[in-house]
Order: sequence, then C-alpha cells, then structure tokens
Amino acid sequence: MAGQAESPRVDALAKACGCERYAVDETPSGCLWAGVRRAGLPHGRIASLDVAPARGLPGVVAVLTRADVPGTNRQGIVHKDQPVLCGQVVRHCGDPVALVVAESREALAAGLAAIQVDLKPLPGVFDPVQALSPDAPLVHSGREGGNLLAHGLMEKGQAGAALAGCDVVVAGRFETPLQDHVFLEPPNGLARLLPSGLLDMIVSTQAPFRDRFEIAQALGLDPLRIRVRAPYLGGGFGGKDGATVQCLLALAALRLPGRWVKMVWSREETFLAGYKRHAAVINLRLGAHADGTLAALDCTMHFDAGPYAHLSGEIMELSLEHAGGPYRIPHTRIEGFCAYTNNPVGGAFRGFGVVQATFAVERAMDLLAKRLGRAVDSLRLQNALRTGEENAVGVPVEPGTDIAACLKAAMAHPFWSQRQAWKQAAPPLTRRGVGLVAVHNAMGYGRGLPDHAAAKLELTRQGTFRLYNSVPDMGQGNAAAFVAMAAKALGQPETAFACVQPDTRVCPPAGSSSASRTTYTFGNALLRACRAMAEKLRTRAALALFCDAPDRLTLVPGGVFDPASGRTVPLALLAGFLLRDDRICIDQFVMPVVADPPDTGHAFKLGFPHRFYSYGACLCGVEVDELTGTVRLAQCLAVVACGRVFSLAGVEQQLQGATAQGAGFTLFEDMAPDQGRIRGADLGAYLIPTALDLPDIACLALPDDEPSGPMGLKGMGEVGIHGPGPAVAQALDDAIGMDVTRLPVAPEAVLSALEDKNA
Amino acid sequence: MAGQAESPRVDALAKACGCERYAVDETPSGCLWAGVRRAGLPHGRIASLDVAPARGLPGVVAVLTRADVPGTNRQGIVHKDQPVLCGQVVRHCGDPVALVVAESREALAAGLAAIQVDLKPLPGVFDPVQALSPDAPLVHSGREGGNLLAHGLMEKGQAGAALAGCDVVVAGRFETPLQDHVFLEPPNGLARLLPSGLLDMIVSTQAPFRDRFEIAQALGLDPLRIRVRAPYLGGGFGGKDGATVQCLLALAALRLPGRWVKMVWSREETFLAGYKRHAAVINLRLGAHADGTLAALDCTMHFDAGPYAHLSGEIMELSLEHAGGPYRIPHTRIEGFCAYTNNPVGGAFRGFGVVQATFAVERAMDLLAKRLGRAVDSLRLQNALRTGEENAVGVPVEPGTDIAACLKAAMAHPFWSQRQAWKQAAPPLTRRGVGLVAVHNAMGYGRGLPDHAAAKLELTRQGTFRLYNSVPDMGQGNAAAFVAMAAKALGQPETAFACVQPDTRVCPPAGSSSASRTTYTFGNALLRACRAMAEKLRTRAALALFCDAPDRLTLVPGGVFDPASGRTVPLALLAGFLLRDDRICIDQFVMPVVADPPDTGHAFKLGFPHRFYSYGACLCGVEVDELTGTVRLAQCLAVVACGRVFSLAGVEQQLQGATAQGAGFTLFEDMAPDQGRIRGADLGAYLIPTALDLPDIACLALPDDEPSGPMGLKGMGEVGIHGPGPAVAQALDDAIGMDVTRLPVAPEAVLSALEDKNA
Repeated sequence: MAGQAESPRVDALAKACGCERYAVDETPSGCLWAGVRRAGLPHGRIASLDVAPARGLPGVVAVLTRADVPGTNRQGIVHKDQPVLCGQVVRHCGDPVALVVAESREALAAGLAAIQVDLKPLPGVFDPVQALSPDAPLVHSGREGGNLLAHGLMEKGQAGAALAGCDVVVAGRFETPLQDHVFLEPPNGLARLLPSGLLDMIVSTQAPFRDRFEIAQALGLDPLRIRVRAPYLGGGFGGKDGATVQCLLALAALRLPGRWVKMVWSREETFLAGYKRHAAVINLRLGAHADGTLAALDCTMHFDAGPYAHLSGEIMELSLEHAGGPYRIPHTRIEGFCAYTNNPVGGAFRGFGVVQATFAVERAMDLLAKRLGRAVDSLRLQNALRTGEENAVGVPVEPGTDIAACLKAAMAHPFWSQRQAWKQAAPPLTRRGVGLVAVHNAMGYGRGLPDHAAAKLELTRQGTFRLYNSVPDMGQGNAAAFVAMAAKALGQPETAFACVQPDTRVCPPAGSSSASRTTYTFGNALLRACRAMAEKLRTRAALALFCDAPDRLTLVPGGVFDPASGRTVPLALLAGFLLRDDRICIDQFVMPVVADPPDTGHAFKLGFPHRFYSYGACLCGVEVDELTGTVRLAQCLAVVACGRVFSLAGVEQQLQGATAQGAGFTLFEDMAPDQGRIRGADLGAYLIPTALDLPDIACLALPDDEPSGPMGLKGMGEVGIHGPGPAVAQALDDAIGMDVTRLPVAPEAVLSALEDKNA
Repeated sequence: MAGQAESPRVDALAKACGCERYAVDETPSGCLWAGVRRAGLPHGRIASLDVAPARGLPGVVAVLTRADVPGTNRQGIVHKDQPVLCGQVVRHCGDPVALVVAESREALAAGLAAIQVDLKPLPGVFDPVQALSPDAPLVHSGREGGNLLAHGLMEKGQAGAALAGCDVVVAGRFETPLQDHVFLEPPNGLARLLPSGLLDMIVSTQAPFRDRFEIAQALGLDPLRIRVRAPYLGGGFGGKDGATVQCLLALAALRLPGRWVKMVWSREETFLAGYKRHAAVINLRLGAHADGTLAALDCTMHFDAGPYAHLSGEIMELSLEHAGGPYRIPHTRIEGFCAYTNNPVGGAFRGFGVVQATFAVERAMDLLAKRLGRAVDSLRLQNALRTGEENAVGVPVEPGTDIAACLKAAMAHPFWSQRQAWKQAAPPLTRRGVGLVAVHNAMGYGRGLPDHAAAKLELTRQGTFRLYNSVPDMGQGNAAAFVAMAAKALGQPETAFACVQPDTRVCPPAGSSSASRTTYTFGNALLRACRAMAEKLRTRAALALFCDAPDRLTLVPGGVFDPASGRTVPLALLAGFLLRDDRICIDQFVMPVVADPPDTGHAFKLGFPHRFYSYGACLCGVEVDELTGTVRLAQCLAVVACGRVFSLAGVEQQLQGATAQGAGFTLFEDMAPDQGRIRGADLGAYLIPTALDLPDIACLALPDDEPSGPMGLKGMGEVGIHGPGPAVAQALDDAIGMDVTRLPVAPEAVLSALEDKNA
C-alpha cells in the first residue's frame, strides 16, 4: 500500500523538527505551578484534612479544598457526578482532595507532601457484576439504583425462541481489561484570569468548546467568559475528551488573578487519575442453522464504570449496538449493565466500547465455525451484512457496506492464502497460527446529540488563506487533512494556507475530536465554507473581468482564471477590495442520522442508532514460544473500507497506530488491578508495544466512496483497533488450540494452555 | 388596487416626521463649503483664468483649477471623457472651470463671483443629426470618429426585403426632448481627509461602490482609501448614477486635510450641470401583412449625448433593444447613432433610452392600425409577444411574458370599455380622447457587466438583526423592502431589523441602484444571506436542544422553535454564544444572462441582450381645451406584470411616480434648449406636474411570478414611465385627430392641430 507519492503534511516539518508548540510547551515566565493531592485509597471517608502545613511553606501561594470551589463542584460530560475536589468521600485512588499552587515545581511538591489527610477506609467494590448485588458496598450512597449507573437493552425479533430452534448454539464468557491511553503528552494546561474577567486557558483537550460549559458549571462561571485554546495534542485517544486539568486549573487561576497557572500530570498521576478503557464481562449465546446461517444472539454485558459516569453509559450503549458484529442476525437480545465501582474511572477510549463487543462476537464466530466444522473465513463471509440489510439492532445498513470485500481482500492476501506454508516453516520450539476477523465501527455521535461542526475560512488581505480548525488535532492528522482538502477544493497549493488551531475566541464551535467523526464532520463544514469562498471569489473576480457568468471562472493557484479571456485576477488583488467581514466564510454541517430509527433500542436517548460505519478485516499471524509462552505478533494485515481514501499515508498511519494499540491491549498492556489499585501504574510495569515488538503492519484500503462524506471519505481512526484481540485469539487457537476468553493474553496462560494440550 | 392592508414601511415614520437624515442634512459644525464656477457658454476656449482675486477674499480658503487636479482629471462610468475641472476648452454651459472652498456659503459665493475667466466662444453643434455631418464643429478635437460617440446596429432577418413585401408600411419621424430628473434633493455631499489617509465621503449617490473607482482614477488615488456613504437619497432617477459632486469634493478635501468640505448644487446649477434624459430623433418604417401581422421594422435613432459620454452609448443600445416594442416582428433592422454635441450632458434617467423607443414604436402601431382600419387594442394584442417567441432582436422571451394579459386587463377596465360614454360626456369646449399602449422594460445590466450584489446580514449580540443595504434607496423603497423580505425569510417582525444604508466601509459591494435591478439583484443576495443565517440559527439552536435534525426547527419571532419538544431557543441566547464573525452572513447574487445570445447585436459588448423584462399597459384619457389647447390628463390606468407583488403599496407608488414623471415628459416639462442653452432652467420655467395636475392614477398589478426573482418579483421602477407619451399621443389623435410626433405636446401645437382640423 505504501509507495504512492503524497506531498508531506503541512505540519510535518514543524513537528519533525520539534518546533510545533503543544500545550505542554507553554511555560510563560513567572508562571505558577498547580498540582493535586490525591486519595491513594479506593474508597474512604475524609476524616480530617489539614492544609495549614502546606500553606506555610515558602513558595506555596495557595492551597484549595472543596470549600473553595464556588460552583456545583461537579464535572461530567453528560452525567455530572465527578467532584473537582472531594469533600467528604474519596471513591478511587486518584480522587483529588486538595489543590496546591506554588511558585515552582519544587515548592509544589513540598506543598503537596505537607498536606495532612486522614482517610478512613470504606469497604469498596471492584467488580462490575458484584457491584450490582444487593449487599455490595455503595459507591455513591443514597443514590437511587445503587451502583447501577446505566442499563440498556436492544431487542430485535425473538432471540430466546430463535435460539431454542437453532441447530447449533455456542456460548461463552469473555473478559476484556482496563487500558490506559498512554498518550505521549500527559494531561496539562495553563489558565490565567485576565483583568477583563476573561479566563484564558490553553489545554491539551479534545473538546475545547464543551470544556467551557463543563468548567462553567463546576465553578459557577459564565461560559462566555472562558476562552479555551487547544494546540496540537501529543495524543488523546479519548483520554482528553472530558475534564482532566481544566477545572482544577480554572479554580487556581480564579484564586490568583493575573498570573498564569500551569498544571502537568506526571505519567504516574495519569495512570492513577486518568480515564481508562472500561473493563467488561460479556456473556453471549450465538445460534445458527446447520448451513451456518446466523439465527440469533443473546448477549449480556457488564461494564465497569469506576466511580464516576464520564461517558460510561454511552460507551456501553455503543458496545451493545456493535455486539452482533458486522453480521446478519435476525433475532437479537443485547443487554448491558454499567456499574459504579471503586476502580479507576472508565472513560472514552478509541473504539468506545466496540473493542469489547468485537472481541466477544468474533470469538463466538470462531466457536461456531468449530462446531459447524466450517472455515472461519467462509462462515463470516456467508453472514456478512450487505447493503440494505438490517444490522443486529435493526438498522438497515447504508450503501457501500462492504465487509465481504474486506474479508475477501484479506483472504486473497498471501498471509492468508499461504498460511499453511508459513505455519509449517515455523522455527524449532515455535508454533505458528493465523487468525482472521471482521470488524466495524460506527461514525459520529449518532442520534440525539447533533454531530456538528462549523468551519471558518479567511482570505487574508494578502490573498492567502487562513483555516480555522475547530476540532483538535491529537495526532491523527486532521489539521493537515483539512488544509489539503481546502487546498484541493480551492485549487490552491497547501502552502497558501495557514491553519489556526482550535481557539474558542476565534473559531466557530464544533463537537469534540472523537468518535471517528472529526474529519468527516468538520471536513464537510469546511468544504461548504470553501464552496462559499470559491463562489465569492469567482463572483468578485467576474466583476473585475466584466464577466457576467461567474460560474465560467475557475480558481487557479493564486488567482481566478477566465478561460474565455485568458485573464487571471490575482487573489491578492481581490482580497484588497474585500472588507474583512467579506473575506470570511463560515459554514456548518450536521451529520445525517437514521431517519426512522427502529424501536429496538428505544430506551436510548443519545447515540442509538448510528447511521454510518466503517468496515474492516484484520489478520494476525502469531508465533508462540513453546518454552516461555511468549506470543509474538509476526504477521499483521489490516484491511479497511472507509470511504474514499483522501490521504493514503493518513489512512495507513491510523490503521497501523490503531492496530498497534489493539495489539498492546491483546498481548502487552496489563493494569493488573487489585482491589481498586492498579499495579501496572507506570511505564516500567505497564508495557506497551514498541516498534520492535510489532511486525510491519500491512494495510489495504479498499476502493470505496461515501456520498455524504467530505471528498467521499468516512472516519476510520477507530476501526483498526478492534481486530488484533479476536484475530490473535483465533490465531492462538490455530497455533496451539488455546481457547482465549480473556485479554490480555499472558505468557503464563499460554504456557498453561500448552500444558493442557500436552497433558 | 388600494385597500389591502400592509404594515407601514419601516422607514415611514422617520421620513414622515423629517427625522431621516439625507446627505444634505449633514452639516458638521465648522465645515467648509465648496462650489464651482461654471462656463456659462456652450463651447469656448479658456483664454485666461485669474483666480487670484478670489483667493484674496476673506473666508476663501482655496481656489483650485485644472492644474491642481492630481490624476487623469477624467470622469465617466464607462468612457472617461469628462473633466473634473476644464483646462483649455469648455464644451457645455455647465462645464466647471474652477473650484472654490470657503468658510461660509457667503464667502463661497463671493469667491466664485471674483474669479476672472475669459472664454473665447467656439462654434458649437446642437443637433445630434447635424453633429455627424463632416463639416460640423468638433466637440472633442482630434478624436477619431469625430462627433460620433457610438454607433449600433441590430439586425434580424431581412428587414429591407420584408418591408418591400409588406401589404402595409407606415413611416414616421419622432422626436423626444431632454428631461431633467428634478429630484427633491439636489446633488450634494461631504468629504474629509482623515489623518489615516482615508478619504471619508457622504454623498447623495446611486453608486457608492463605483464612485470610489471613478474618484480614484480622476484624482490619482487608491480606491481603497476612499470611503463612500450613501444615506437615503431624496430622489435619483438615474441623475445620481455617476459623478456629480464626488470628484470636486474629493479634490477639495485632499487640499484641506482634516476638515469636512460640503457641496450642494442649487436647483439652477442642477439644471445647468446635471445629466439629462437624451433628446432623440427616431425614424422608422413598420410593415405588416394585411391581416395585421407585423412583418418588419426598420428604425434609425439619433441620440444627443451632449459633450461627454456618461452612459450615452449604453442608453442608446438599450433603446435599440426595445425599439420593436413588446411585439413579434420577424425582420428588424435597428440602427443607432449617438453624437457629441454642446448641449447639456445626456445621462441615465429612469427608462434609460426605452422611453424614446417606446414613443416611436407605439406611435407607429397607431399609424398602422389607422392604415389597416384596425382597433389600436386588437392590433397590439394580435402581435403581442408570447413566451418563447423571439423579441425584435432575436432573444426568446422568458416564461411569464404577459403583455397580452396586461392589454386585456386594461381593455376590461371601465376607462377603456366605457370610453365612448366618457368621451360623449365631455364638457362644453372640451374634447376627450383615450389612448392605450403596451410597454416593456428590461431588467438589469444585461450581458457583459455582471449585475451583482452582495448582501450582509448580522445577528446582533442582542438577538436582533442588522441588515447592510448595499444599494442606495433613492426613494423607491428598496431599503424597506429588504427589511420586509428579510423579516419574512427569517420569520421575524420587521422591528427586529435595523437597516444600515450603503457604506463602503461596512457593506459588501453591489452594483448601482438603477436599471430596475435594485430589488431583484440585492434582494436575491439578501435572501441567500438569510437562508445561510436561518440554517446557522437552526443548527446552533439544535445544539442547545440536543436535536440532531436541525431542519426540523423553525424560526419564530425572537427564537428558534422545535415542534418536537415544544421548546424555543431565544435568539438573544444564541447570539450570545456566537463569535462576531459567526453572527455575520454574507452572500451574493449575479443576475442570470441570456445563455446563447443571438448575433443580432454582436457589436455590443455591454448590455445586449437582456433576459428579463417587465411588461405593462398604459391607458390615458385626455381632455383638450379647445380654446387654449391645454391638455389635461383626466384618466390614467397603469397595468403591470412584474413578477409577484411583494408590496402592493410599493408597486403602486412606483407605478404612479413613473406615470407622473412620464406625464411630465409628455405634457409639462420643456427645457426649451436653444444653441446649447436651456431656457427652462429653473422650476419657474421648467414645469413638472403636481398632484393637482394629475388624476388619481389607477394601478393594476397582474398575478405573476418570476422564478429567479427574490420572492418571485421582478424590477418595475422604470416600466411605468413609458406609457404616458404614446398613450397621450394616441388619446390626442382620438380626441382631436392630432398626429403627435414630438414631445412635449405644447398647447400651441394642440391649437395648431385643432386649427388644421377645423380648416
């Protein structure tokens, strides 16, 4: 797939040479440093909190507690249940109890250490299934529903009866673990209260426009008095979608007007207090007719929300929506429970619940293939959703649905077609196996929450362009993609564009950088703004050319060309005659939603159902070391159908990054949670795959086109993460007959499986 | 037609109570006064010009001559041939030779009087036909083409041969006179050079955006350093389309930085120096078959341009295009000559050449009816153009062409159906007659010059709207119409809108207020801006409402309403969350042109052909006093088909005003030009009809719709002016058998006709 020449991303040079400034690079001279004293206990009552010793230390300028928070003290994207500072109870080890602001990082550390906090342990709950038992300790006392944060049910047809009538039914219980985003740049930001009353913030955030409202509510402020700037992010993956440093920084800045306050979480603090992918337990039964046709699915999921809602309910719902995989299943019953626990806080993470669901359903397909004596590939092909058919929750799938093409492309690849030879060529003491799975991932917020972006494009007085990006670029390259799109749409070189990164003071609003929506939604808004700009430029050039048919004119680099007269009006000349207001085009876009949603998931107010999906297939070839149980990912192929490919390099980078992150989730990353404490709490213990741990990941993007997409594309930042889990599991079955039901796959488990087989 | 309730125009109260500020109302304290010394001689060489006596007078701060003009010294909309200040030669009585600036009007008068100018008379030329003879004195010496400013020929079929084969051919020579616009507010304005270098101007002008370029070229300035504001005009009628005070004021302001300079022409100066409707001489032959079917037209026009081009060539071309009337004529040859003379400067005037052409062709139709023994109405009906047929210059007419419906509506009116009874009831010594004619008038600039407007609409921070009108309202009511349109489009009360009058600093550009294009073109641009605004508001309200289908929302007064939830988001709330850039919508429109113009008028680069026309019929009933020859317009009916009626009162006012102005042209107004000097040079000698001189003018606007028009309308500010000339002429034939071939109709001519008949 590599090899096609593409011009470098406009931001490549600045990033490669280290000139690009991330939030963490901003350290204004004389800025203050803020930090948080955290609970260190999964559940406890604050018996006493003495901050006086800290206040007395040199260089410590403020120590703030719950009593100093002016607003509701409640953060949360949908459900507001997470305190800025805890007052009476702490509910997970990362809960903050006091905020210290100091003149230096050293003074900050001393201040944090000097705080005397006496926490009386409370009984905790650490399992999302046990959390729902009547005698479980309550994470939030006095709450109706106890520890049940959210419950969801999607039903289509008569799953129970249909299962009873199936020729074959397989059942399984699958577990997926917590995962940390491990972005390079930790949560961080700056804030300053200006004399005008404006709270000026620079934050590493995926949602600068929403942040204003979250901060405002938590601290009792006017959201319009908050400015949030979001420079490039050194990674986000969902972990910066929601409040991290925002409210704490704002609180500090309000207390210390006029001074910049900076907060940077350490890696260890990020492990402790940052959001995590939800651990999940999934029980399912999948039934088929003797010919392999899927007939029914009954699936029950339990999600571990940790102590605060964040987007747990929404994530679980997306999981339910994907529980049937990209397959045709007439009867489904999919139920989910999301429970509060005293584990780390679950939150958004690339894949957003779909990772968990995909692992379960793909594993079930393998079991079914085995029971039916069918090949894993042909069984999947047979049941692959086709355009217009209803997916597992009753939504007819859009034209372009091509999961079958993805599977076929993977099957045609030598990794699959020549797998027997590859397996037979395994070195001594090594066993090889290959797995192939199908994946899909919805795009956008779904129904109920407008998936919106507004885009602003400015023609500068000099005749160049300024593109105001309203959705943060966390590394996926959307900013560069937007420049490339606008350049293409306006017939200009990319060098004619400057890109302003998200800033609520100058950019029109947009939703978050998330949900595989960023490029699709903002791209559409931007192209509309480009069309308006192009029409404006053609029309104004027509005035200069005495041309009464502006549509005849075309934009050429630096000008507007009239083929009839052969004359070109320079953009710099046009720009000189336009008022500033007239040099700006703003337009917006809202992602279309399913017009007549089925009542299969009528309980859901936000999200369900989604209309657009990207599809893919993932092949993994593993090598198992028979002596150590170590599993090496030796071959990997990611296939995707995600609309038209706008940037082949961009698609490849997203596919490879997502696959690597999925591989980490499958084979490497282990939080080792224990009674609310994670043992894999730093990069010495929590291992993520490096380039040396992974093979070259082959990528195939199939020819595709999404008519509603900007230049035909769909979002695809997430779909690549789902494959490695089930594909590696299937490969391990292929290699050593291991029945993988939980991730990550530890060498000990592999050894144990080898022993069982050898026994 | 009256009686339908309409809400008052938004600007009605301010105008009625005298609060509205016109340019002439602006007299900043301490402003200087500027004025011009004019030639007073139709053609002469400036032998000497001594301004020293004026410079020495108290209160005179500057006296400027040609030598003080820094640029090209040339004004003109298309052809730049009119000096700001004359250097060596004066070419008409109103030519300016020196500019005086003084501290007071009295000092100005004294300064102007003190200038010593010695003009040596040159032989002049005062007739547009004679001007083309080889031995005629040259208005511009050394010019290729001599006095011929423009020549035009439109040919379709074989007019010569077709005329030869006609059963009936009528011929005539028709003359139409000069006409003064007699706007209430004379040409005037103010200018000030700011320290920033910006030249700030407030001018009573129809074309503020174009003025900048004209001033810049004449004075060697950067057009972007010129700001022109155009408040409401106290009338324009074309007479303020082009430079009047602009360059003179700018010249004065450049010389006296920092001070406001004001110039106001007196009524007499306006008669002397202002533009006039072109006098024309038209010879034509019109042939028909015995059954009345028109077969061929041969028409030759001579237009008197005066000494400078202004838009004379373009006006003549429009005249040629209308020379065949709204009739089906297969063979036409229409030729025009536009000649320089030393008469007053011809320029734009409501009707723009069509008045002259209509008088000639409608008179010829009367002659033809008489020769064929046909009724004037049925002959016209028989030949009336229908949708899709080619007009006289070969352009297929657009759907909606309903000249026949206009004629039928007039024929059904009691003024026509009961005319015999009315005539018989004439008082003693009085003769009555009734005439009925058909009229049409093109809309817009036509091909070659984009008929363009950009419109800006702002949502204020308070949730109201600010509409930036880019086309001056000279009294026709377009500003109020725009407010009404925007209010309707956005579902808001008109009181929610403030209207900013044209100002090049804050309004996006638009063409002039002229050519029956103002409401059509700007209205279309405005409605596009309104659509963009409505979509923006719906989308942003959808965010607040968690509504994923913004199209479901509707704008209601002060808010955006969601029928599904019953909730309304106040505009004031929405506005608060929008950046200023995001509260502004600008869009533009260019009038569509004829896609495949016929080669009948291929010599024309600007204007020909036009695509859209309004149609009408005019009925005039006259009473002739047998003793004095006085003609009283006793009955008048104006019928129009001009697209959908957006404001009935507005249509009625334009029809009545145009009809009155046409009646003045026909019966009252007489410049009495004599060797380049006009004797009717003040309102004591140049009589315009007052309300007492005219009957109530009945108006009928037919149901119509122009799909390309804003809310279905077409322009109709001009079409009403064409009828009275030929209708009164026909009525005089009906009353006393008078064969009117020239306008105005003087009582002496009527008496003479009566005597001829009685002889």
